[in-house]
Amino acid sequence: MQAENSNITAGILIIGDEILSGRTQDTNTNYIAKALNEKGIRLKEVLVIPDDVSLIAEKVREYSNRFHYVFTTGGIGPTHDDKTAEAVAMAFNTKLELNQDARNILLEHYGEDQLNPAREKMAWLPVGAEMIPNSATAAPGILIKNVFVLAGIPDIMAAMLKTILPNLKSGAIVHSVTISCNLPESVLAPDLEVFQNEVENVDIGSYPRYKDGVAGLSVVVRSTDVDAMHDVEKKIKASVKQYEEQHVA
Amino acid sequence: MQAENSNITAGILIIGDEILSGRTQDTNTNYIAKALNEKGIRLKEVLVIPDDVSLIAEKVREYSNRFHYVFTTGGIGPTHDDKTAEAVAMAFNTKLELNQDARNILLEHYGEDQLNPAREKMAWLPVGAEMIPNSATAAPGILIKNVFVLAGIPDIMAAMLKTILPNLKSGAIVHSVTISCNLPESVLAPDLEVFQNEVENVDIGSYPRYKDGVAGLSVVVRSTDVDAMHDVEKKIKASVKQYEEQHVA
Repeated sequence: MQAENSNITAGILIIGDEILSGRTQDTNTNYIAKALNEKGIRLKEVLVIPDDVSLIAEKVREYSNRFHYVFTTGGIGPTHDDKTAEAVAMAFNTKLELNQDARNILLEHYGEDQLNPAREKMAWLPVGAEMIPNSATAAPGILIKNVFVLAGIPDIMAAMLKTILPNLKSGAIVHSVTISCNLPESVLAPDLEVFQNEVENVDIGSYPRYKDGVAGLSVVVRSTDVDAMHDVEKKIKASVKQYEEQHVA
Repeated sequence: MQAENSNITAGILIIGDEILSGRTQDTNTNYIAKALNEKGIRLKEVLVIPDDVSLIAEKVREYSNRFHYVFTTGGIGPTHDDKTAEAVAMAFNTKLELNQDARNILLEHYGEDQLNPAREKMAWLPVGAEMIPNSATAAPGILIKNVFVLAGIPDIMAAMLKTILPNLKSGAIVHSVTISCNLPESVLAPDLEVFQNEVENVDIGSYPRYKDGVAGLSVVVRSTDVDAMHDVEKKIKASVKQYEEQHVA
């Protein structure tokens, strides 16, 4: 079941003081993570950092070296606190230049008399970069080397990601199945450990819920090998059934 | 307005394959970020990493050195995929030992006959660690040096954080005021840049919204100096009023 590229990796850089101050709940990580998971791309790390040009540049360079694909969100608008384009240029020892394709899109959107310098700033991309069009607004994202520089606003980020996804290499898809029950996690824990130790290519994750005083448990079995996954699923279901009967008895 | 400790910093490590696979939307970061912001503690960085003992250990050690306070969430339950306690022990070159206080709490909760090894695992804390009680369930969190090891389940994490917060040093509180309008960000951008360049101790953040095709803008002014914050607020409000009148005219 292993596809050719079973180890395509990715990292995400979430750029924004507003996430770190607690003003904004980040949802872009989850959206991108799901999309990558469906493509069989392994998201290895997510980092949230402030709007600091040198720090963004350092982390973009590091992630670009460590992962096949890097996604950044945030900081590509027209205001003084939008520093990601500049930082990405710094990361790759290059400068910003006015990208005519990007400017043409802005020109068409705003008209010549409304294309002020703040708006035109969004057409200044790192030398060698391509723009990522988005269907929601005129402002483009940026692709340079293996780094996709996306908007921070969820709807616009999603529009950009939609454009990108078909062009990414697919890896081996990790399939998963979830077994839900109301057993305490600690009752099932010994069996889960035994099952996990029996297999190499299957991951068993145990995710308890606890909300408003009510507990529950989801056991998630994940593997690129569907048959192996179902074998483990059967064992866990049998175990759950046994403990549930004891619990009721 | 500067408090004595104006530069108390923190980092968060979110531990969990389920966040990276997209299965779970992390909300703990936002919850902790808000709580720290209210205490005047600067959250500098958030990192999401998989359930990997060596990697967790490495990052705990790094964050412990870089920040005043470190918070981890996830991986402290009774199952085989709960590896954070072991990793934190490794980070500080120590081992796990059965903590009698923690065991007593579990004993009281479960009773002697129900305290199986999986449950007792939650009482094995790094040597030198203190337990963090939580009012929601019996399983304790862990405090070692400047690292607070919290549960991944939001309600339980919140119960642990509530116990901790009064004991943290407070920094200078960053006050903020938000100016909302429906102007395009690019219209206001030149003025915001001028206002930002006039002040050192005030941060102006520009946060556009775009949802279902409708755009809007929040300008957030942040400072430890309330008077300076209000001065900038007045300038921005005057600027917004002027452009709104032009827009309507």
